[in-house]
Amino acid sequence: MKKISELAEGVSRGDRRALARAITLIESARADHRAEATALLDALRGSRQALRIGLSGTPGVGKSTFIESFGMMLTGQGLKVAVLAVDPSSTRSGGSILGDKTRMERLSRDPNAFIRPSPSQSQLGGVARRTREAVMLCEAAGYDVVLIETVGVGQSETMVAEMSDLFLLLIAPAGGDELQGVKRGIMEIADIILVNKADGDLKPAATRTCADYTGALRLLRKRPQDPEGFPKALLVSALEEEGLKAAWQEMQALAEWRKANGHWQARRAAQARHWFEEEVRHGLLARLSDDPEIRARMEQLGTEVAGGSLAPGVAAQALLEALRAPK
Amino acid sequence: MKKISELAEGVSRGDRRALARAITLIESARADHRAEATALLDALRGSRQALRIGLSGTPGVGKSTFIESFGMMLTGQGLKVAVLAVDPSSTRSGGSILGDKTRMERLSRDPNAFIRPSPSQSQLGGVARRTREAVMLCEAAGYDVVLIETVGVGQSETMVAEMSDLFLLLIAPAGGDELQGVKRGIMEIADIILVNKADGDLKPAATRTCADYTGALRLLRKRPQDPEGFPKALLVSALEEEGLKAAWQEMQALAEWRKANGHWQARRAAQARHWFEEEVRHGLLARLSDDPEIRARMEQLGTEVAGGSLAPGVAAQALLEALRAPK
Repeated sequence: MKKISELAEGVSRGDRRALARAITLIESARADHRAEATALLDALRGSRQALRIGLSGTPGVGKSTFIESFGMMLTGQGLKVAVLAVDPSSTRSGGSILGDKTRMERLSRDPNAFIRPSPSQSQLGGVARRTREAVMLCEAAGYDVVLIETVGVGQSETMVAEMSDLFLLLIAPAGGDELQGVKRGIMEIADIILVNKADGDLKPAATRTCADYTGALRLLRKRPQDPEGFPKALLVSALEEEGLKAAWQEMQALAEWRKANGHWQARRAAQARHWFEEEVRHGLLARLSDDPEIRARMEQLGTEVAGGSLAPGVAAQALLEALRAPK
Repeated sequence: MKKISELAEGVSRGDRRALARAITLIESARADHRAEATALLDALRGSRQALRIGLSGTPGVGKSTFIESFGMMLTGQGLKVAVLAVDPSSTRSGGSILGDKTRMERLSRDPNAFIRPSPSQSQLGGVARRTREAVMLCEAAGYDVVLIETVGVGQSETMVAEMSDLFLLLIAPAGGDELQGVKRGIMEIADIILVNKADGDLKPAATRTCADYTGALRLLRKRPQDPEGFPKALLVSALEEEGLKAAWQEMQALAEWRKANGHWQARRAAQARHWFEEEVRHGLLARLSDDPEIRARMEQLGTEVAGGSLAPGVAAQALLEALRAPK
């Protein structure tokens, strides 16, 4: 595995091309690539720690503009920023977000920023796995902040929260009634709610929305991982680059408090355990598709079940016994 | 398995107590019960076919009143009706809907109706499995119509659609704007949209809502499994028992067309295959929790991963190899 140790060395040195190649490797579905990817991740394990920030928001709230402005502010402070995307829609189309880089024109040209679109995988679970591994590679490459962006739909938010140290929810100014529309689940995983577009005509609405969320957050049960005053809602304008420094200070304060109080490490430990368990489940299920003999047997039993000559449970038991038998 | 053949015989005879006992058996998580359940389902397989109707609607649209009125109309025609519930919230609390029978007072006292609340399982997948098996038992017990009810949230609708021949969406009269609020996904799985509460003050709003949905449904791409004019929106009043017979005629017409055109059988075949594949996946993953040795090894590796001394991927591979080795 000379190739892998060279690649690991390149990633550790912060070589962007090595990082891009490493991410391509972990995204590959080929069995030999997977073995190499596992070796690479093992070689780079635990070398450095970035601040992993999850970011969610429905289309139209200004996510790209926020990432661009926020990212530029961070690189302006001398920090290195990686941006990874999790696009649940790409699981269906098989394609990744087009134009991630054109969406963030300035940031994509910044030598201290690294932007990578969503891996195209057939299942959301596959996207989660690849993204989790890409986060680790970006950490090992010396990025200080890894932003993991997702659209606010379905399970992708929970998934991103499960690989982040902090979770941000970006929202647009709205009428008071729409507050109810925000799913309770997302309120419960958000650490900071950023009300964007606090500029121009929308500023009064943004201020009201922020007050509404502040009120709503107070009603939530206090979580052990939060210091006084968190989760909180803040006003930002990604367009006018206002409120971003204040938001960053809040993120840092929250991260520091969690580090000092053991919550940071506990969360990372729980996430690593979860990741391992997911890998086991995934690997176990992969046998059904990887082994041509098993695949053929499953197909054949499935046809018998579809034809009505075999009950689903009986057929399933037959297949499970075939899987249990040593080859 | 004398006990099982007796139970199968009781279910086939339409004995309600035998049916209730059989459903309790399939809901059990005990391994010996599972083996008995598989044998029971195999013994009863394909004996009779009911019309399986999935029904979804958010709280407040009048689902219970509809089921009561619709069910009473069916039993009034000499048909036997079973009502099963899938309650996604019961997956968390571990409890099933309380008072399903008090919600449907008249129907629950009707000797030709059988009402069973949602199984309480820790996972939605477990609920799906048990419900699918309960549907089969109700069919075998000679029920002509099996209504599978669910609240309109998350994945439970898709799950119910996957075990139904027809899928109904029950909605309440609403302002024109709210049409957008109905998730596109649910519009695509619904065969008939029933606008309820077409009575009293709400009648004009119900009529408008029904027209709005009729328009919206026309915009959807035609599905091969639909005759001309389907999916369609209809007005009903569960309270005043109006429109129910017309709705039932539409359901029968749709079912007949699908039977005559091969779609009915094709759908059942695909569902059976899907059920079998789900059973296989479930059984495979069950090894991780069922085998005490594997469980202990997983726990130990998980702790090493959480502590940072082992990469998740490496630990997963170690466990997968242990699972592969013959005992």
